[in-house]
Amino acid sequence: MTPDFELKQYLEERRRLVEEALQTALTEQDGPEARVVEAMRYSLFAGGKRLRPILCLAAAEAVGGDSQSAMLAACSLEMIHTYSLIHDDLPAMDDDDLRRGVPTNHKVFGEAIAILAGDGLLTEAFVLLGNDNALPPKHTVKLVQVIAKAASYRGMVGGQVVDMLSQNKPADLETVQQMHSRKTAALISAATEAGALAGNGTEAQVDALARYGRAIGLAFQIADDILDIEGDAALLGKSTGADEARGKVTYPAAVGLERSREAARDLVDDALAALEEFDAKADPLRALARYIVTRKK
Amino acid sequence: MTPDFELKQYLEERRRLVEEALQTALTEQDGPEARVVEAMRYSLFAGGKRLRPILCLAAAEAVGGDSQSAMLAACSLEMIHTYSLIHDDLPAMDDDDLRRGVPTNHKVFGEAIAILAGDGLLTEAFVLLGNDNALPPKHTVKLVQVIAKAASYRGMVGGQVVDMLSQNKPADLETVQQMHSRKTAALISAATEAGALAGNGTEAQVDALARYGRAIGLAFQIADDILDIEGDAALLGKSTGADEARGKVTYPAAVGLERSREAARDLVDDALAALEEFDAKADPLRALARYIVTRKK
Repeated sequence: MTPDFELKQYLEERRRLVEEALQTALTEQDGPEARVVEAMRYSLFAGGKRLRPILCLAAAEAVGGDSQSAMLAACSLEMIHTYSLIHDDLPAMDDDDLRRGVPTNHKVFGEAIAILAGDGLLTEAFVLLGNDNALPPKHTVKLVQVIAKAASYRGMVGGQVVDMLSQNKPADLETVQQMHSRKTAALISAATEAGALAGNGTEAQVDALARYGRAIGLAFQIADDILDIEGDAALLGKSTGADEARGKVTYPAAVGLERSREAARDLVDDALAALEEFDAKADPLRALARYIVTRKK
Repeated sequence: MTPDFELKQYLEERRRLVEEALQTALTEQDGPEARVVEAMRYSLFAGGKRLRPILCLAAAEAVGGDSQSAMLAACSLEMIHTYSLIHDDLPAMDDDDLRRGVPTNHKVFGEAIAILAGDGLLTEAFVLLGNDNALPPKHTVKLVQVIAKAASYRGMVGGQVVDMLSQNKPADLETVQQMHSRKTAALISAATEAGALAGNGTEAQVDALARYGRAIGLAFQIADDILDIEGDAALLGKSTGADEARGKVTYPAAVGLERSREAARDLVDDALAALEEFDAKADPLRALARYIVTRKK
């Protein structure tokens, strides 16, 4: 069995567990909320890679915990990620018609319901965390803190502002790093930190896994920028060249393709270094770090 | 000293404490998040009555607790209330240009920043709760649960959906009650429940104060509907008759003005009945219940 094959199987199995947990976490509803919950589910089950929840579960295992202890946190992270996609796609933001090859939320449900579906998913993430009674309460409070901060103006909301305000301006490295670290790396770092907390890791382990997450989060976004230039549109499920057409600030636009590839590789090395003190239980995280920059979609 | 005068003084003093706490909770920022935080603060400090936080503090005291123990929860409730106003005013929703006599968030900051300011305030509510280290963690988890549920599709998000989908349709009592209980009463009930929790109330006290909050929340919204018809535009800081012009489903539209007044009075009686087992420390809540249906703005 090649290492690649193992990772593929691991990802598929984990994705299935996450799908099941998400289906339980957000069921169809009757009554007045039926329509907005339908819209929330439309985007939540639109075929994402489930990278953030999988990283969260893998981090719980890396510290010797049970991955199931991190499942509600994992689902809450995916809900926050999905809310951010719905709002980013809105006409007032990126005005996108397609995501993952299917019409965006507001194209199907209208703008009002799409805004509310995003609001509903962001809120539901905290409903899930508040309902978690398997973890010690002090861990849950810390999860709320870590995940809320990553989603806040310090993280994702701030990153989207940089994105909006920097469009059609010359791309400088500082702006790109500001944007990527907030828009993408903040939540991915929260995912591994949350997993380590839910898995009852030591303070040093939690810190190391937050550092790992920050590094692969940045590497992931740089790889995304590169795929937008070099990727296969059919595999990606979206047209390439969209960033440039839209005047988006990207890593390659700031420093060129070659230096972008180097930066991504360096970040993977940083991520692997953060795992130095961990044993074989962190192997999935090691394989995930390598996969993130070699993936084709 | 008349009872009315006492309440006015009480409300002013509490409002001042809440303003101070909110100023500390959301300070101006430098860097890329400066603009969105400016937009968040613009709406958060636009002169609200601070009814939800004041009710939260009063509930903490009614159970014999220290009102300061409920201050972070109180601030988080006001942030959630403010986020919902920003999103409700958006062009895709109510398309409002003015709120409390000043331009709405998107009129000043543009639609993209307004959406993000709402997202930022909703998230910040949970950052505040996650940072609360004065309360026992199990209380904080319960606060997250209560407040998130009230804001979720079960509550505010669902209520806004009913509002959007029912416009320009005949007003029936069931729809109005669905909308009001979710859009308004859910968060007001969460405010008094959260205050009782933060003040370390017994389970029976927490339940009673949630019931009190639900009743005055509904009464508050019916009074709002009535003020929109009979109120003084100058006092209200907005034009009257807006609900009808917009085809909004309201209580008076469903059952007429006289029955609406009766319903509000009955709800105040229900609220007072929920306080039966409480001593004089619940007097501010008793005065607030009466104030809610007699206020002129």
